[in-house]
Amino acid sequence: MNHCAPIPDVQGSLDGRHIAIDKVGIKNIRHPIRIRDKSEGIQHTIAVFNMYVGLPHNFKGTHMSRFVEILNRDEREISVESFGPMLRMMVERLEAKSGHLEMSFPYFIAKAAPVSGVRSLMDYEVSFIGIIAGDGRHDFTLKVVVPVTSLCPCSKEISAYGAHNQRSHVTVTATLNQHMWIEEIVQIVEDLASCEVYGLLKRPDEKFVTERAYDNPKFVEDMVRDVAAVLNAEPRIDAYIVESENFESIHNHSAYALIERDKRKLEARPEASITASPW
Amino acid sequence: MNHCAPIPDVQGSLDGRHIAIDKVGIKNIRHPIRIRDKSEGIQHTIAVFNMYVGLPHNFKGTHMSRFVEILNRDEREISVESFGPMLRMMVERLEAKSGHLEMSFPYFIAKAAPVSGVRSLMDYEVSFIGIIAGDGRHDFTLKVVVPVTSLCPCSKEISAYGAHNQRSHVTVTATLNQHMWIEEIVQIVEDLASCEVYGLLKRPDEKFVTERAYDNPKFVEDMVRDVAAVLNAEPRIDAYIVESENFESIHNHSAYALIERDKRKLEARPEASITASPW
Amino acid sequence: MNHCAPIPDVQGSLDGRHIAIDKVGIKNIRHPIRIRDKSEGIQHTIAVFNMYVGLPHNFKGTHMSRFVEILNRDEREISVESFGPMLRMMVERLEAKSGHLEMSFPYFIAKAAPVSGVRSLMDYEVSFIGIIAGDGRHDFTLKVVVPVTSLCPCSKEISAYGAHNQRSHVTVTATLNQHMWIEEIVQIVEDLASCEVYGLLKRPDEKFVTERAYDNPKFVEDMVRDVAAVLNAEPRIDAYIVESENFESIHNHSAYALIERDKRKLEARPEASITASPW
Amino acid sequence: MNHCAPIPDVQGSLDGRHIAIDKVGIKNIRHPIRIRDKSEGIQHTIAVFNMYVGLPHNFKGTHMSRFVEILNRDEREISVESFGPMLRMMVERLEAKSGHLEMSFPYFIAKAAPVSGVRSLMDYEVSFIGIIAGDGRHDFTLKVVVPVTSLCPCSKEISAYGAHNQRSHVTVTATLNQHMWIEEIVQIVEDLASCEVYGLLKRPDEKFVTERAYDNPKFVEDMVRDVAAVLNAEPRIDAYIVESENFESIHNHSAYALIERDKRKLEARPEASITASPW
Repeated sequence: MNHCAPIPDVQGSLDGRHIAIDKVGIKNIRHPIRIRDKSEGIQHTIAVFNMYVGLPHNFKGTHMSRFVEILNRDEREISVESFGPMLRMMVERLEAKSGHLEMSFPYFIAKAAPVSGVRSLMDYEVSFIGIIAGDGRHDFTLKVVVPVTSLCPCSKEISAYGAHNQRSHVTVTATLNQHMWIEEIVQIVEDLASCEVYGLLKRPDEKFVTERAYDNPKFVEDMVRDVAAVLNAEPRIDAYIVESENFESIHNHSAYALIERDKRKLEARPEASITASPW
Repeated sequence: MNHCAPIPDVQGSLDGRHIAIDKVGIKNIRHPIRIRDKSEGIQHTIAVFNMYVGLPHNFKGTHMSRFVEILNRDEREISVESFGPMLRMMVERLEAKSGHLEMSFPYFIAKAAPVSGVRSLMDYEVSFIGIIAGDGRHDFTLKVVVPVTSLCPCSKEISAYGAHNQRSHVTVTATLNQHMWIEEIVQIVEDLASCEVYGLLKRPDEKFVTERAYDNPKFVEDMVRDVAAVLNAEPRIDAYIVESENFESIHNHSAYALIERDKRKLEARPEASITASPW
Repeated sequence: MNHCAPIPDVQGSLDGRHIAIDKVGIKNIRHPIRIRDKSEGIQHTIAVFNMYVGLPHNFKGTHMSRFVEILNRDEREISVESFGPMLRMMVERLEAKSGHLEMSFPYFIAKAAPVSGVRSLMDYEVSFIGIIAGDGRHDFTLKVVVPVTSLCPCSKEISAYGAHNQRSHVTVTATLNQHMWIEEIVQIVEDLASCEVYGLLKRPDEKFVTERAYDNPKFVEDMVRDVAAVLNAEPRIDAYIVESENFESIHNHSAYALIERDKRKLEARPEASITASPW
Repeated sequence: MNHCAPIPDVQGSLDGRHIAIDKVGIKNIRHPIRIRDKSEGIQHTIAVFNMYVGLPHNFKGTHMSRFVEILNRDEREISVESFGPMLRMMVERLEAKSGHLEMSFPYFIAKAAPVSGVRSLMDYEVSFIGIIAGDGRHDFTLKVVVPVTSLCPCSKEISAYGAHNQRSHVTVTATLNQHMWIEEIVQIVEDLASCEVYGLLKRPDEKFVTERAYDNPKFVEDMVRDVAAVLNAEPRIDAYIVESENFESIHNHSAYALIERDKRKLEARPEASITASPW
């Protein structure tokens, strides 16, 4: 029974508006995936996918069902090793020159509490973003949202006792030229925060994290600068954005900071020259 | 030009399934409103409305457009005085016995910082919920989400210095038998929190709120109990739910507590009798 | 190294406010789970947990860390068979009389497209809600959000051609007295919708679903009534809420309907008597 | 009473990490505003603000409270005429070289239904984004999300009757060199959609919009191309992004397309040259 033959292929016809489309495809489709895990081997989780290709000016439309076919191609779960091949297959099967594949998922790391050593899982929001540009360049970007505690240096300095602190989200979006583990990005951020956060803390742990945060105050500006300094020195990272959003405990709004850098660009950053100055 | 006449009224036909519908109508429609303000007279804001009626078993459908007509009936902005009349008009125009009208909006209160006195607006999420039950009973419920600072008593007690604190949302949902101002609910909660939060704080204010929170630690359990004690004693409140959600600064999850009470129910609460016990 | 001994147990002290707390615990904590699947055996997914107990009036606080310990007790993933035992363990370990355990997760079903038979996964949002009431009663409630197509009967009837249609969410919240599969709830809803939705459709499938929806128009009222009729007749269901929200394609708001019924309550529903009337 | 004098200004001290911060400030703060309206003169609404400045490498921190002071400077509501002055004041008062001011708000337009002429409000999500770059360049960008109906040409073509349709969000983000009304952007999009959407439709209107959408099918690709063609020809627009997201009625995911263009860049777009070809 061939229903397809007599059904016209509307999307495949020619288009006369002479306007290329930068991205066209499907957005917000969920699928189970399987991720390699630095310590456990494998973890199962659920990703939201965005899948787009560039469409040349002379094609009327893309074939949306092919994106979903690629997602459902093999076994039930998509393994992380398939990410690169999926991106290439997407560009090829959609007869495109450029493509954009994004998958976002909760990722879990087993952590030991700092004093009692009790173990629990912590969840991080992670995205993989793969791009094949029109000029053939490939980019892989890893984005990790790391929840931490931030404690305000000003509040500590000016108050007779106590200091306001809060949960913050530090987000690193790093374009890589070699493999980096999600765990490596998480550790860079957690080591630099006022304190890292945990799923499970017993009383001695709670004492520890309270005192550690108080001993280690950081402005939102400090947080992004300290992370940026490490990312600057990391040769596996070509470009990055680091953001921190502090959900202030004394306000109903956030404090926020962002540093962005692309090491591949030749122009010197303003501060580079100033660095050499007598400052 | 009468387009309506020949167009069949599908919704008005009879239904044979013998199943009444508890709520039917429109959800998530936005409209500008005008609220009476305890200090300023009037404030303009934007509400999201849910508008439902009960549908007897023998009617096939309700007339969705009539709900939207009621919203757009008069002038551009709906005044808060229209809330009760709108609910009654909705039930009447939809030929229903019961109705449910809900509007949720951000509400602003001008606050003075505790030391410097600098003024700024704080935003609160407020809902009005009006119900006409099938038995003719009318209920008006006011819901207010109050952001506050909470500081953990355990963390303070066990730590040599500092204490973890965070933003919390304390939500009061109060069924009223007389008018209460939004500002009255807000003040009950803010007076009982570890500290209230502000839009604008100068350094001396930040010192003040840091020390005040440290002097005034509260568990999530304390917060809901202290608010419940005040609501218990408030004769204008017939029934309430009080919730607190603390967005923990040392975890990636919330601490949460809820107390619910309907004073109109005759049955004694279990703890009432225990209160008289030797405990 | 025993840090715990000298650290005071603030939460365990007595409380003099004489106010019991209905629910206290942790909210919005994510954890991987493993679900039994009607066809595949096992599927791995990620759940958001809310875990609460009732707290008698004379205890100052609950022990928040015990909730997280229960989550992290065994192996990495929580299996669905653990849900009941977890609820009982929670009540026992927190020395409570009542408890409330909720886990919400995306669930996937492999579906075959109606004509081409191509297979793809569809995602559904599912919750398990387990309650142990203060009187010892146990309740298990299954909630499933089923995305479907709804096509408007009025639009079809009054228009020379076409009919507006849209994605709708039909939500069934069913308190069960025996096991039911998630797949059974999904099928009840999908069979009654204007048309079910799929991840992957080829052109002949798209023709099929377009025509099927047009042949099968349903108001939001029809949808909830048709589902209610099936749930009324299902002996494994003690009580239910069925809702439909249509994200109208011709408006920027939703059409919505809800039917709620508890078969365990003795009082006859109003329409029951009317059913016997000459109507 | 001068509390400020003895309190150290931690933020004002020097920083030795030699890393400038691209954006630092406050995020997600709500404030009432007053917008000029093409037809009504003035409308009151509520905005969410993000306010950032660039921080040179040698300053430790910015003064967060100054952002909130600027918001609360004058009268209660911020008028739209203040947007430019606010951005300049922010950069000046924070002693910065660059600044980024963003406000997002629901905006209402009174529309007449196409046949009955009944009037109702439609809500649109609007953002103003003002940027002062480090090189002194000023940019003003207007972003408008326009909800419309999209009807699938393929579904119409291949089906004996009916066609799937759904609500779509068409988002135009336009960098302007002269004033444009929000209403002008809305009209460009609504004129090009399968059909525009309305708050209130009577039965003859519902017949009209059903038939109009069926007569006017558009792929997500058509939608962004047709809008792009108008934006290309509009001399008041220097650069734009146009996106369409269709919340597919036959799937549980979206179809999506995006076209981006900066007319100020000299390089010819690939299609420009092809335009001159024999195609």
